[in-house]
Amino acid sequence: MAKVITMGEIMLRLSTPGFQRFIQADSFDVCYGGGEANVAVSLANYGHDAYFVTKVPNNPIGESAIAALRKFNVNCDHIVKGGDRLGIYFLETGASMRASTVVYDRANSAIAEADPSDFDFDKIFEGADWFHFTGITPAISDKAAVLTEEALKAAKRNNVTVSVDLNYRKKLWSTEKAQRIMTNLMQYVDVCIGNEEDAEKVLGFKPGNTDVTSGDLELAGYQDIFKQMINKFNFKYVVSSLRESYSASDNGWSACIYDGNEFYHSKKYNIRIVDRVGGGDSFAAGLICGLLDGKSMKDALEYAVAASALKHTIPGDFNMVSRAEVETLVGGDASGRVQR
Amino acid sequence: MAKVITMGEIMLRLSTPGFQRFIQADSFDVCYGGGEANVAVSLANYGHDAYFVTKVPNNPIGESAIAALRKFNVNCDHIVKGGDRLGIYFLETGASMRASTVVYDRANSAIAEADPSDFDFDKIFEGADWFHFTGITPAISDKAAVLTEEALKAAKRNNVTVSVDLNYRKKLWSTEKAQRIMTNLMQYVDVCIGNEEDAEKVLGFKPGNTDVTSGDLELAGYQDIFKQMINKFNFKYVVSSLRESYSASDNGWSACIYDGNEFYHSKKYNIRIVDRVGGGDSFAAGLICGLLDGKSMKDALEYAVAASALKHTIPGDFNMVSRAEVETLVGGDASGRVQR
Amino acid sequence: MAKVITMGEIMLRLSTPGFQRFIQADSFDVCYGGGEANVAVSLANYGHDAYFVTKVPNNPIGESAIAALRKFNVNCDHIVKGGDRLGIYFLETGASMRASTVVYDRANSAIAEADPSDFDFDKIFEGADWFHFTGITPAISDKAAVLTEEALKAAKRNNVTVSVDLNYRKKLWSTEKAQRIMTNLMQYVDVCIGNEEDAEKVLGFKPGNTDVTSGDLELAGYQDIFKQMINKFNFKYVVSSLRESYSASDNGWSACIYDGNEFYHSKKYNIRIVDRVGGGDSFAAGLICGLLDGKSMKDALEYAVAASALKHTIPGDFNMVSRAEVETLVGGDASGRVQR
Amino acid sequence: MAKVITMGEIMLRLSTPGFQRFIQADSFDVCYGGGEANVAVSLANYGHDAYFVTKVPNNPIGESAIAALRKFNVNCDHIVKGGDRLGIYFLETGASMRASTVVYDRANSAIAEADPSDFDFDKIFEGADWFHFTGITPAISDKAAVLTEEALKAAKRNNVTVSVDLNYRKKLWSTEKAQRIMTNLMQYVDVCIGNEEDAEKVLGFKPGNTDVTSGDLELAGYQDIFKQMINKFNFKYVVSSLRESYSASDNGWSACIYDGNEFYHSKKYNIRIVDRVGGGDSFAAGLICGLLDGKSMKDALEYAVAASALKHTIPGDFNMVSRAEVETLVGGDASGRVQR
Amino acid sequence: MAKVITMGEIMLRLSTPGFQRFIQADSFDVCYGGGEANVAVSLANYGHDAYFVTKVPNNPIGESAIAALRKFNVNCDHIVKGGDRLGIYFLETGASMRASTVVYDRANSAIAEADPSDFDFDKIFEGADWFHFTGITPAISDKAAVLTEEALKAAKRNNVTVSVDLNYRKKLWSTEKAQRIMTNLMQYVDVCIGNEEDAEKVLGFKPGNTDVTSGDLELAGYQDIFKQMINKFNFKYVVSSLRESYSASDNGWSACIYDGNEFYHSKKYNIRIVDRVGGGDSFAAGLICGLLDGKSMKDALEYAVAASALKHTIPGDFNMVSRAEVETLVGGDASGRVQR
Amino acid sequence: MAKVITMGEIMLRLSTPGFQRFIQADSFDVCYGGGEANVAVSLANYGHDAYFVTKVPNNPIGESAIAALRKFNVNCDHIVKGGDRLGIYFLETGASMRASTVVYDRANSAIAEADPSDFDFDKIFEGADWFHFTGITPAISDKAAVLTEEALKAAKRNNVTVSVDLNYRKKLWSTEKAQRIMTNLMQYVDVCIGNEEDAEKVLGFKPGNTDVTSGDLELAGYQDIFKQMINKFNFKYVVSSLRESYSASDNGWSACIYDGNEFYHSKKYNIRIVDRVGGGDSFAAGLICGLLDGKSMKDALEYAVAASALKHTIPGDFNMVSRAEVETLVGGDASGRVQR
Repeated sequence: MAKVITMGEIMLRLSTPGFQRFIQADSFDVCYGGGEANVAVSLANYGHDAYFVTKVPNNPIGESAIAALRKFNVNCDHIVKGGDRLGIYFLETGASMRASTVVYDRANSAIAEADPSDFDFDKIFEGADWFHFTGITPAISDKAAVLTEEALKAAKRNNVTVSVDLNYRKKLWSTEKAQRIMTNLMQYVDVCIGNEEDAEKVLGFKPGNTDVTSGDLELAGYQDIFKQMINKFNFKYVVSSLRESYSASDNGWSACIYDGNEFYHSKKYNIRIVDRVGGGDSFAAGLICGLLDGKSMKDALEYAVAASALKHTIPGDFNMVSRAEVETLVGGDASGRVQR
Repeated sequence: MAKVITMGEIMLRLSTPGFQRFIQADSFDVCYGGGEANVAVSLANYGHDAYFVTKVPNNPIGESAIAALRKFNVNCDHIVKGGDRLGIYFLETGASMRASTVVYDRANSAIAEADPSDFDFDKIFEGADWFHFTGITPAISDKAAVLTEEALKAAKRNNVTVSVDLNYRKKLWSTEKAQRIMTNLMQYVDVCIGNEEDAEKVLGFKPGNTDVTSGDLELAGYQDIFKQMINKFNFKYVVSSLRESYSASDNGWSACIYDGNEFYHSKKYNIRIVDRVGGGDSFAAGLICGLLDGKSMKDALEYAVAASALKHTIPGDFNMVSRAEVETLVGGDASGRVQR
Repeated sequence: MAKVITMGEIMLRLSTPGFQRFIQADSFDVCYGGGEANVAVSLANYGHDAYFVTKVPNNPIGESAIAALRKFNVNCDHIVKGGDRLGIYFLETGASMRASTVVYDRANSAIAEADPSDFDFDKIFEGADWFHFTGITPAISDKAAVLTEEALKAAKRNNVTVSVDLNYRKKLWSTEKAQRIMTNLMQYVDVCIGNEEDAEKVLGFKPGNTDVTSGDLELAGYQDIFKQMINKFNFKYVVSSLRESYSASDNGWSACIYDGNEFYHSKKYNIRIVDRVGGGDSFAAGLICGLLDGKSMKDALEYAVAASALKHTIPGDFNMVSRAEVETLVGGDASGRVQR
Repeated sequence: MAKVITMGEIMLRLSTPGFQRFIQADSFDVCYGGGEANVAVSLANYGHDAYFVTKVPNNPIGESAIAALRKFNVNCDHIVKGGDRLGIYFLETGASMRASTVVYDRANSAIAEADPSDFDFDKIFEGADWFHFTGITPAISDKAAVLTEEALKAAKRNNVTVSVDLNYRKKLWSTEKAQRIMTNLMQYVDVCIGNEEDAEKVLGFKPGNTDVTSGDLELAGYQDIFKQMINKFNFKYVVSSLRESYSASDNGWSACIYDGNEFYHSKKYNIRIVDRVGGGDSFAAGLICGLLDGKSMKDALEYAVAASALKHTIPGDFNMVSRAEVETLVGGDASGRVQR
Repeated sequence: MAKVITMGEIMLRLSTPGFQRFIQADSFDVCYGGGEANVAVSLANYGHDAYFVTKVPNNPIGESAIAALRKFNVNCDHIVKGGDRLGIYFLETGASMRASTVVYDRANSAIAEADPSDFDFDKIFEGADWFHFTGITPAISDKAAVLTEEALKAAKRNNVTVSVDLNYRKKLWSTEKAQRIMTNLMQYVDVCIGNEEDAEKVLGFKPGNTDVTSGDLELAGYQDIFKQMINKFNFKYVVSSLRESYSASDNGWSACIYDGNEFYHSKKYNIRIVDRVGGGDSFAAGLICGLLDGKSMKDALEYAVAASALKHTIPGDFNMVSRAEVETLVGGDASGRVQR
Repeated sequence: MAKVITMGEIMLRLSTPGFQRFIQADSFDVCYGGGEANVAVSLANYGHDAYFVTKVPNNPIGESAIAALRKFNVNCDHIVKGGDRLGIYFLETGASMRASTVVYDRANSAIAEADPSDFDFDKIFEGADWFHFTGITPAISDKAAVLTEEALKAAKRNNVTVSVDLNYRKKLWSTEKAQRIMTNLMQYVDVCIGNEEDAEKVLGFKPGNTDVTSGDLELAGYQDIFKQMINKFNFKYVVSSLRESYSASDNGWSACIYDGNEFYHSKKYNIRIVDRVGGGDSFAAGLICGLLDGKSMKDALEYAVAASALKHTIPGDFNMVSRAEVETLVGGDASGRVQR
């Protein structure tokens, strides 16, 4: 099994139960999650030696976040304690034509205020095989952007493969700032994950005439952008999940990958959604797992799509599925028949 | 913003959690609601000065009902305390081919026993723009029917626009009694809301060959009945929501309106249902809001249909959506994509 | 109303709430159920004098299982107390392409260790009209297989009609053992319920080219197997429910019956699933009720299919529907409209 | 085991969870209970053949009330279905110096409107050993008072021992009316249970200078009143539980009994209260059980006090304790040590 | 009824259910509260025209905080929307020798960043009778300290009586800073509430040898400090609640007051605690209500102590008791007997 | 920090919420625990390198048990997967004079059926400082008794200090069998923990006239037995917690220790109980931690008593307290005052 490093923010997630709106809620369901943390949990589930690097406050909320990761076998040895607070996000799960609502309360979190000196990156990346980050981390603060580049430099010094999930968050930064910072970071990246919207907002690639709201997918447009991306940044792979949002309750879910040579579009799943948060992270984790396992580009993509389809049926940020469960779905059994 | 008066019954709603049948329930979810109260909450959410007029018992259950309205900014200055009990309805939420079940326990409620002298209607309607009531209120008792007419007379004395939602409830009265009482009350009404079944049961208009159980909709039949209704009662608008009950879990939802001149059928939404109770009330409120805002008949109808489609995704009787959320859906985004 | 005897295991069911995986659960929903117990509850609901025969430990968990049956009017006079434990099954409800997971922990249960001398079968079957068992009971232990045959002999001595639900459980025994034991027991059976997979695994009849995972149904294959079954065992009826597993959330549901002469395929329902456990048992109960009531083979089948379609919308093992509710669905109203 | 008849009202109890006030509650805990029903459940738990006689509406709420009794082995063969509604009581559990609050909503219940012709009392009392009723039943309506006397006459015709729990409810009737009706009914009573307040309010016996609010108990005063009661009504036993209300959380609990000859005061328990509703009913049931078992007056009283002390530690109206548990406490082990 | 203004922070409170530690919690109970907001709710419950002045973010969490106040009849007309976030506090309820734990996450809240120009204080205080604030508000930020003084100046310009609850919070500021800022604000104060620890930490008065941890109370020391306080600041009254912390589950609770002339110590209550947060606020509100009602100093104190004793039995920050309930307890009935 | 090994059974604990009896429960609270596992969690909380050695089934329930330990930082590297089932215990929490009830369903668990060859004990104990086991493990099966001795031999080979908690469980074995097996195992033990009842039932030492049921404690008797125990087995320390069971809600809690020379009785705490299960385990862990830290015998005992007093306030088997929290209580602050 490989040693995989992820770095980013883990947040306290507070969600209303049972389709309640915020104003109705007398209780919030509690879990912990965040883009890179979710990837770490998935990889740990698949048996990899997954490290999550972050900073959390030295209080019971920070402790609880670490415990949540530890429960799922994520190595927390490089999590630093200090700073003022754990970032929070509030989630109201939508249904049908009512979209889920996310309210961020993550400013001034411990990781947003962390200093590169908090971490010994060369020690962290010693013997590591893979490093994964997302476009969210450099977006949360200028300090976090600096921190991310320091981590990337250390990863490269240690010959670690690097993947990024572009993950544009319009509530965190402008497209201008995103492009300025992310374009620079792309020099360290081997595998780039991001949909058309990300590619445009974060890296400035003009999409074709795809309209993400309508749910239409124009594979041709994707291939065109992927080509541009590889030409500019020399990525080994460019990958995108393809979500067709029929409604907040039902989505189509597939993905495509391009290696500069061949463009491949996966099988598509129609999903009855339980919790779509973390869907993209479980996709990234599936892809990384597939590539680390030495699967072909196509097989890795199918593994990633199946893994993340399953995530949509599980409450919380984390994807709690085993390799066996993913492989069963890849193998074609989506019938949902009870095993007994 | 307009001053809108609604009058009727607010009930304690006791519903089983998670598709349980009554016999399984160890707890009931608690909320408060009722046709006109639901309309008041919607209008308050949209920023209108919404009054709800009723009588509740002077005990903690009555207090809780008022607090529930106040929480949503409904003006409760004209709610009277006294009488014996708050009406109750028990709700078991259905799924698929199992229909939701409502058990009424509302006889002898404070408002059913209220006397016109409990209310100073001329004070209530002073400066008001709109009055809304439903066919449920005159159905709950003879006293309530008298009370309703007193309110309507006062509304007219004060030049208030009046809307009704016919809302036939076969468990509360016979079609004969409904027709006798409601036909008389129609003289005060400007905007009449009701589907074919209501039009027949409450006002005696013969429907065409529409079969509401089968989910088929015959728009031509609607237009024909609407014409008859305007001819007889000189309504400004006749309106109906159009529900296609595919199952307890999935419905089609649209509406039509007629002003004596033009007949308009709205966009149709296919809804994955969370809670359909209060759907019709949220439709009435959306229509009233649209008309008060000076929207065209068509735009008001589209606003009403979108608002009430959203209601079906929210637990409880009340529709807790903002104008912005309704406008987004009217604008065409039903994709349910997470905003973050 | 008829006197119906069922015998088998009642288990403690522990299920995770709200689509949680086991590893997430801080609480389990508790109910009690098991193939034959579920049939008894349904028949008691329909007004029959339903007895459930089993052995449960003389501790509060055993007491709770009996109380659960008694609540639904099942006669528990012949339930014996003793032995070590109540069998348990853990259930994780799936969604979409994630299947429900059942973990059995039922070895060494009181009924698995019960001795024929624990029961006075001639007294139990005195005046009885029907005896129902499933292929699960002889599978749980060698002693239970012996016990089952003792019960069957007594049933026949008392001229009681016997039905079986083959219900192959691969986690409990091998096909070899199943065939050896069950083939012998078929001599006592009048009505045999089981799908193609059961017919093959339990009785060794070769299916046609039906692939149960794909959801395809080959009625012709069914008819062919049914014919073989009647030829060999002289059953009065052979019956099978037909489940099309589109996903863990949506199934198609119908059934077929054969009397050696006519083969009949019922209406098909498309079900949005709340809880599919006990679906087959509610089908068996519906069929038994229909036949006891003197319905025609076709009408009994339609009753059984409608009853069990409704079961899929109710949480827990038991089917809590009345005759009136089943008849309404048989009558064609699957619209799920609220009655009020 | 004896055949015991109880008759009265069973209500739906709706209580706020966890010390919430009504205005805070988003859910109510649901159970069913009522003075005589609670006695029936206790007696069934002790192994007696306990019948509860009442009328409940023919709807799912009435069905659920019956199911709740049946679960605890109460014989429901003489429960009649019909009428309009099941009585309801709302309960807010107090703590420390905040008293529990009960809001009754029980007017016009099925049993309050029941007619003597609904019941075949001679059949009901055939072979019965004991009949128990409380002062609540004749208080709920004039019809119920008539019904109660009819039952009492039939009981006497059938040589059944009769006990009453006076249970004065000031929210249901005045002392004048209570005295008028109850004084007449005392002619049928053998065993009279009631504290000083009941004796005064219901039967007009002047108490000594006991102040029930202060928690002081004056045994001498009790003995004096008991003597008067036996002189007037020729009861076999007069009995009273003695509650010292230190606060809503902690009570002292004992009892006294008088047979016209000897006055006996039981052991006193200091109770940390979980739920005190039904405490008096569990006391009455314990006494009846003790007397039916042929215990001495003193032993029956100690059994009753221990049984009802245990009730205070159990949520809901019903006392779910076994004979063995009561006997252990009578035997002196109140240490609450875990058994394992 | 009087017009009372309170100003401060309202926070989202997230508490673990049922004595869970943070690391165990899968859900948090949600309510909203804060020192001055809690006072406003109490006063609104008593029928006063209570205004709460604050700033909350323009998002669903801010909306929910306002709705929570509105539900309890607090006038929210002067609540401003804007800023970044609502302050949060996490609460873990202790038991026995385990103290409750509060984790603050309130930095950068909307009110902490509010500007005096956000509020029109002269309009706010127009016609007002009383203004209440606490030592928490100036502690949350330098801007909030400035804001507080602006409000105080406006209050004095409008002849409004001013009360303060000193409420030292060591997690928010140092004693040095507290003394510097609070000493200055005392010039505007008429009624000063604070215990010995507050008097020392916030205002620098040396306590006698009272040790608040041990639970000993030295009334003489209190009187001495109160004298010093009145000498220095010319308060009309100095008041302190007196908490004897036997454990996290049981407290003694009384209070003392001094008007420069007479020193009075109230009745003491021994409380079984449900939720002690907001206890001090409910005491301040009770005192203000008593003084506004024209009660004597002693009667106002007894009202305040009784009101706040009741608060300790209610979950959440708010004290939901009526005048009648407080008066009953003042009148001496602490027996907790059920009323029915 | 030290390396500590514990070995034993971890069970699924299923407890009824809120003082419910088993027959009432519609859900069970879920946690995982067991004597030695609980000790491991405490030691991990205190910062020690705590290993738990066991065997759990290779299914989701076994996985969940491991995850529960991992969450609390227990090293699970030596947990073996296999066998049939995880042991279960059902818990009903008592109150006042109603004792908590435990129903064991632990026969045939994976660890009870484990073979010494499943573990490489020399590897496990390599570099370890301490080994702790309880009298429960050899009681669960003959194989487990053999396994325990194998572990003890390996511990001694590796110069590991050994502690035992005698923990007599009458539902698992007879005193005869307990004495035969445990007497043999005592040769490996350095620190022996057990109360008088344990000493008698497990090791055959005659107690003085202490009556554990009555709650009386006879320290002299303890000292006498401790002397006998050291004389016979040459223990370094003999230790006992002293529980005074006033009721299921309130206990006195202290401890005594003897080193062959000095007998010391700790401070006593009066505890309002939240959950007493695991109290003894948290005591053992506190003692081990104190001794590993080089504390004096008396200080280690005070640490153990304070730590375990706190456990009684925390739901679940595990004691989730930090060193700082224990030290605060040892330091004398049991006031339960909120820290903020």
